[in-house]
Amino acid sequence: MRTQVAIVGAGPAGLVLAHLLRAAGIASVVIERRTRDYVEGRVRAGVLEQGTVAALARLGLDRRLRTEGLVHTGTTLAMDGETFRIDMADLAGGAVTIYGQQEVMRDLFDAAETHGMPIVFEAADVQLHDIDGASPSISYRTAAGPQHLACDVVAGCDGSHGICRQFIPEAVRKTFERVYPFGWLGILAEVPPAAHELIYASHANGFALSSMRSPTRSRYYIQCGIEERIEDWPDARFWDELCLRLGSETAAGVVRGPAFEKSIAPLRSFVGEPMQYGRLFLAGDAAHSVPPTGAKGMNLAVSDVLMLAEALEDFYARNERSGLDGYSARALARVWKAERFSWWFTGLTHRFPEATGFDRRMQVAEFAYLRTSRAAQTAFAENYIGLPLDQSTGRLSTEARP
Amino acid sequence: MRTQVAIVGAGPAGLVLAHLLRAAGIASVVIERRTRDYVEGRVRAGVLEQGTVAALARLGLDRRLRTEGLVHTGTTLAMDGETFRIDMADLAGGAVTIYGQQEVMRDLFDAAETHGMPIVFEAADVQLHDIDGASPSISYRTAAGPQHLACDVVAGCDGSHGICRQFIPEAVRKTFERVYPFGWLGILAEVPPAAHELIYASHANGFALSSMRSPTRSRYYIQCGIEERIEDWPDARFWDELCLRLGSETAAGVVRGPAFEKSIAPLRSFVGEPMQYGRLFLAGDAAHSVPPTGAKGMNLAVSDVLMLAEALEDFYARNERSGLDGYSARALARVWKAERFSWWFTGLTHRFPEATGFDRRMQVAEFAYLRTSRAAQTAFAENYIGLPLDQSTGRLSTEARP
Repeated sequence: MRTQVAIVGAGPAGLVLAHLLRAAGIASVVIERRTRDYVEGRVRAGVLEQGTVAALARLGLDRRLRTEGLVHTGTTLAMDGETFRIDMADLAGGAVTIYGQQEVMRDLFDAAETHGMPIVFEAADVQLHDIDGASPSISYRTAAGPQHLACDVVAGCDGSHGICRQFIPEAVRKTFERVYPFGWLGILAEVPPAAHELIYASHANGFALSSMRSPTRSRYYIQCGIEERIEDWPDARFWDELCLRLGSETAAGVVRGPAFEKSIAPLRSFVGEPMQYGRLFLAGDAAHSVPPTGAKGMNLAVSDVLMLAEALEDFYARNERSGLDGYSARALARVWKAERFSWWFTGLTHRFPEATGFDRRMQVAEFAYLRTSRAAQTAFAENYIGLPLDQSTGRLSTEARP
Repeated sequence: MRTQVAIVGAGPAGLVLAHLLRAAGIASVVIERRTRDYVEGRVRAGVLEQGTVAALARLGLDRRLRTEGLVHTGTTLAMDGETFRIDMADLAGGAVTIYGQQEVMRDLFDAAETHGMPIVFEAADVQLHDIDGASPSISYRTAAGPQHLACDVVAGCDGSHGICRQFIPEAVRKTFERVYPFGWLGILAEVPPAAHELIYASHANGFALSSMRSPTRSRYYIQCGIEERIEDWPDARFWDELCLRLGSETAAGVVRGPAFEKSIAPLRSFVGEPMQYGRLFLAGDAAHSVPPTGAKGMNLAVSDVLMLAEALEDFYARNERSGLDGYSARALARVWKAERFSWWFTGLTHRFPEATGFDRRMQVAEFAYLRTSRAAQTAFAENYIGLPLDQSTGRLSTEARP
């Protein structure tokens, strides 16, 4: 079998890329290790930057998103129960849309099916070959036996635990990592959320987040120790601790109900450089991870593949290689800024085991400053709604906005 | 001897307070452990916030400052030699004035002499008495023997190593501290500065600062290990390292010359809470310290005493105690924001021994973000020129500016 672009991984990065390439008339095949149900069932992010929404709209994938997504023009921060709202519409002329990754995946898969886009599920033993030569290929195994896919380019979209990254030689690869000494315990419950918008709360006991997937489905998180287990957190204990950290004002709006999903996720900042080698191009979690604070993960996957698709279009339509050659540098410029925001927002709101009284006061002072500074709130807002794909150094960002 | 306000310490906090009280018709006596020459000779800060300049102007103490001070409407940041300028006038409608603390002290002492304001120099063994009663007093010793000064209120303006802070009982006092694992090696040289404005430089080797005291006197700093000694840094080594860290573009403007002052200062963030107890009120370094990055130290001393003088005026003129009662809370609100800015700016620009590759990338990413974000630059600028005395939570800061 032969294609132009072989895409490894059918998560948000891989599928959005496949749709972008299809729209540009470029052939691709997606190779996925799991089943569609598995990929679609993963509970992940739920906050879409406006650039992500625009990309899905351009692909005609926003019908359900437009009707079911919740547009948020602001978000609330809480420090020891005291809250203030950051008005993203006023400050940065933008908004985010609440729409779960599960919904995004369903839309992407449904449209792929409608268009007859080739996706191979349950592909085992995926290996890349000859990525530093002119004729790369992928081998894998299905129920029908060993398979081989020749291609011009491999897009590594196989997530944090993917294999693609490992095909960049050790001597070339640089990795940057920070593992946080805590995790997020998250639940889904079929109850209306405490508030219409998200509430990010910092409390002496640790971080909490009040969010939702729909007007009738709440998504709550609390920071927990990495050594803790789900069994340590029966529903009642979770609700009590959540309400304590959100503060009495917000807690008054919390409707308790059985948690039908409960899981603990570790927090990590990670970037692998470069994001390309020979004819292999990495995108999304295959190249980098962010802690979930600020919800940048899926949005970065989309901005990566927007850049990669642009570069591939230049390559195929105009035989112009500079886009592909510059892909890693261009993508990393935006990735590092999102890494910075996620790291900063995590540091601002979480309890660190090693934190001193001074460190806590710095968090409190930063909240107090944010609360009173239009400039600081604007900086928050422009990051939260998503920085532009490229930020030229010649023009300051906020000037570029309406 | 009796006075209304006994001021311990004749540094910037104590002397500005004495002048403010005199202007309000309130009597004070300043008790200083050292000589005028010693106090005036200390090489310290040199960047005055616009609020500090306004306060000195209101006191008629700005004649020399207006003619000799250098008004800076911007400042430059450098990361591994790449520079960009933050335009404080454009972004935050303000500026800072370069005028050394030695010059400020000379003006304050000269005017105190002109007005015949009582300052006791070389007062040894200063002790506070009865600060939690209605009749506090101060005892000390001069060449003439033991002295006693009765007063209504004691203003503790005796700096980081002062004794006043210790008169707040242990059970009441809370201290917050961060000691940085490095120092600043600073030199003064009678050569024109590398640039008209300050350049704060972050380099893999560590921080450097290009600054000046006048168009013919340069003040340069480089970050050094706390264990290093001045003897380790002969002039040639200092200039080489400075030029390396500033980057070739800035280094081209560095004029070398003999260092006539060379010293190493440790970096520390410190806040003692509360800033008052009974009839004792602390101001300036007696209550808090900042690392010198961003030059907040003397400016905080002035904003503290502006608040304290206002409270004392209410007390004496209108028998209104609420200003005095609320002094510590009001002062600390501003102090903590300046502590945050100084801590953040230090973290952004210095090399930390324990820093990982990820940490360095966060510094680089923050520079890259600052370089392209008008909002982030505005936040920097409004802190650098000095936040307003009070920031109400009802109105966002930048809206309050012209």
